[in-house]
Amino acid sequence: MTIRLALLLIAAQLCAQDRGAILMEFQGFLSIPNVASDGPNIRRNAEWLRQAMERRGIKSQLLEVAGAPPVVYGELTAPGAKRTVVLYAHYDGQPADAKQWKGSPPWEPSMRGGSPMDPETRLYARSSADDKAPIMAMLAALDGMKQFNLKPTVNLKFVFEGEEEAGSGHLGRILAANKRLVSGDYWLICDGPVHQTRRQQLYFGARGVVGLNLTVYGAARELHSGHYGNWSPNPAVMLAHLIASMRDENGQVLIQGFYEGIEPLSETEKRALAGAPDIDAMLMKELGLARTEGRGVLDVINRPSLNIRGVRSAGVGEESRNVVPSEATVSIDIRLVKGNDPARMVELLRRHVEGRGYAVLDREPTPEERLGHPRIATMKVSDAGYRAVRTSMDLAEAREVIEAVKRLRPDVVLLPTLGGSVPLAIIEDVVKAPMIGVPIVNHDNNQHAANENLRLKDFWNGIELFRALFMMETAK
Amino acid sequence: MTIRLALLLIAAQLCAQDRGAILMEFQGFLSIPNVASDGPNIRRNAEWLRQAMERRGIKSQLLEVAGAPPVVYGELTAPGAKRTVVLYAHYDGQPADAKQWKGSPPWEPSMRGGSPMDPETRLYARSSADDKAPIMAMLAALDGMKQFNLKPTVNLKFVFEGEEEAGSGHLGRILAANKRLVSGDYWLICDGPVHQTRRQQLYFGARGVVGLNLTVYGAARELHSGHYGNWSPNPAVMLAHLIASMRDENGQVLIQGFYEGIEPLSETEKRALAGAPDIDAMLMKELGLARTEGRGVLDVINRPSLNIRGVRSAGVGEESRNVVPSEATVSIDIRLVKGNDPARMVELLRRHVEGRGYAVLDREPTPEERLGHPRIATMKVSDAGYRAVRTSMDLAEAREVIEAVKRLRPDVVLLPTLGGSVPLAIIEDVVKAPMIGVPIVNHDNNQHAANENLRLKDFWNGIELFRALFMMETAK
Repeated sequence: MTIRLALLLIAAQLCAQDRGAILMEFQGFLSIPNVASDGPNIRRNAEWLRQAMERRGIKSQLLEVAGAPPVVYGELTAPGAKRTVVLYAHYDGQPADAKQWKGSPPWEPSMRGGSPMDPETRLYARSSADDKAPIMAMLAALDGMKQFNLKPTVNLKFVFEGEEEAGSGHLGRILAANKRLVSGDYWLICDGPVHQTRRQQLYFGARGVVGLNLTVYGAARELHSGHYGNWSPNPAVMLAHLIASMRDENGQVLIQGFYEGIEPLSETEKRALAGAPDIDAMLMKELGLARTEGRGVLDVINRPSLNIRGVRSAGVGEESRNVVPSEATVSIDIRLVKGNDPARMVELLRRHVEGRGYAVLDREPTPEERLGHPRIATMKVSDAGYRAVRTSMDLAEAREVIEAVKRLRPDVVLLPTLGGSVPLAIIEDVVKAPMIGVPIVNHDNNQHAANENLRLKDFWNGIELFRALFMMETAK
Repeated sequence: MTIRLALLLIAAQLCAQDRGAILMEFQGFLSIPNVASDGPNIRRNAEWLRQAMERRGIKSQLLEVAGAPPVVYGELTAPGAKRTVVLYAHYDGQPADAKQWKGSPPWEPSMRGGSPMDPETRLYARSSADDKAPIMAMLAALDGMKQFNLKPTVNLKFVFEGEEEAGSGHLGRILAANKRLVSGDYWLICDGPVHQTRRQQLYFGARGVVGLNLTVYGAARELHSGHYGNWSPNPAVMLAHLIASMRDENGQVLIQGFYEGIEPLSETEKRALAGAPDIDAMLMKELGLARTEGRGVLDVINRPSLNIRGVRSAGVGEESRNVVPSEATVSIDIRLVKGNDPARMVELLRRHVEGRGYAVLDREPTPEERLGHPRIATMKVSDAGYRAVRTSMDLAEAREVIEAVKRLRPDVVLLPTLGGSVPLAIIEDVVKAPMIGVPIVNHDNNQHAANENLRLKDFWNGIELFRALFMMETAK
């Protein structure tokens, strides 16, 4: 029996697999609170996971450094296989405020919308989507294969992190300490959602990010606006001119050098983008927008961006008072594409501000400095950030993954990069292996918010997907 | 004995007057809490005041409308006098947070810095300066005159308001209902501070004011900045461009027609301004400024201004999140000079925003409106405001007041207008009489804030000043 025939058989027979049993096991996993800072419960999650892997014949262990949630590691060797695939997911979740959850609290999973046989039914719980769903789907995929006595065609390694939502502060050290163990031909990053059209997608990178706050100053204290307005420099106006000088009204960044040094997209990547669905009109309607900043969203996420994520100066509305504010602050995040160095992008911004006549400090000015400089700004990098990572779609490993997924989902969307940022650089720095993003959950899963949920249809699809990947054809 | 000789005599003999007794009586007055909304205590203030006036032979009564603090009214007729001078002050004060007061709470007056004989000693209490000080100084002036058997040369009327700090919501109605009673040749507005150089000043008007909030919109909800930044319109950037279009970096307002319709200063007013002390350098040092927005502060307050009093969009610093904000709000106050109509100035701003491509609403946009307009703003006037008032320095009444004050304080500073706003228009609308501002308290009195205080030197000066005014020479 060819692999292809086996896949078709499995797809047709999926209903034969006990969906009830899968969901029951998953609910047990979701019932364990999983905030990274909650040490005892994180350990219960890790232990639950280790045992669930052992039951499936995966040789597993906890990889640890002091004071951090363990990485749950597992290996399933395929005799004769030449390829070793590392599957990454994370078992920790975002903190949750139970008061904001409707129907059921975050760690008491509940099903809504119909029976588990209805594909539109959703399972509500923290991490039901982000990111326990891929872990459970991998385990269920192995169960389904066992029913048909099918074996993986590649060696599988599992790296399940326990503090992704807390910033992955120890992941690099844990991987470095277990370099040989976690080595493989490439990594599949099993996190994030499928396409907004509900089509399967694969992403080959993620943007980097750096965040900072910039404050400009007026007088040393708030002043009566009647006595001193339009005489004492108004920092809110200064900041408005500064922001306007950074970005035009069409989203174009005006900082010198901002678009330089970008690694261009390959022909394959350009073709992939051209073939991806155009969702601008759909998004505009959903978001109540009569215009966008000029380019298509797929174009935008393949360029660096400068986003104003917040502005504050004195008070507005009920809190407004007749004052000349004494300072004004803007918070900025810069998204990076391959070729952008986080520190260089911050330096370009600093030079831009200096070019507008400001003395730029990394702390508040002293009274003497205020008297010595007509314009002063304080610039503080809040998230040192990390660079973008992008895997070439032309690599043999990438082509194998694309082929395997295409057989099951011919309409798969291939994205050179996610718009959002994932710290892939932390992994890349240690393991030096290509990475490909394999998301399985619905995009409307309320990730990071209250009432997180998993659409069962996407879960069943995900199980099929992992089965296809575990049994894919390889060149060597 | 000429009036002039009498004045000199009195000045020399001021120490003979019992300063201790004045302060003791004042402390009793300051011990009564005086927030306008505190009905029972406001009434105790009014009653205290009525009795204090009666004791001095001032025929007094409470002028009332339902649900408002009374105006305490008094009359002291000077036989044979042709001029009738109305003296306005207010006996209510700003609310106070006792926890922020150091040394003594707001309504437990305390003396700090030395003995009452030391002119630098200060009296701390809510309304010790703003605005019970002028009231007490007028009463003490009459006491001092009585010692020397001196009589006023003009008919005196006293109008002491009880809800100025709460917006003078009923003053117009109370005055209108007692129009004949409160009529006089002109009003002396006894509120505000003396000059920052500690020189006496007279002001002949005050600017008007109008306040508003302006909100611009992006997508219907906050968006992930990685996925949608620089694609979905960023309202913080839109607002920055809008603010920058309203004002250049030198304080010049760029709204069409903003500087039109201003009633020009007379030659006398220009001369007065040219003779006023240049305090820019002193203020810049005090406020930590290495530059100002281009013009001298005295020039600025004689023009309309547009001040950004606050800006807010999403969060900064600790509160920053990686989002494209869904809206951004600016709070603006516009100061008006004579000739500016508040409604017209708001209309000019509205037209300016429309001219930048915005549909301007007076409420939040509906989902349909969002989809129908590329740019939408909501503009809400928060303080309907009032116009500026300015009395000509060339009026006979004005010249008499200036003369009387100049004899006592040859270095008096004459200001065509205050930079700040006082609702003189409310009074002017009813009584149609000229108004002149006669402040007596120190500028550094912590008005409206914690630890309000009165510098005794200014208080003693104020008593002398009222004595001079009560006995001034008049043309008729």
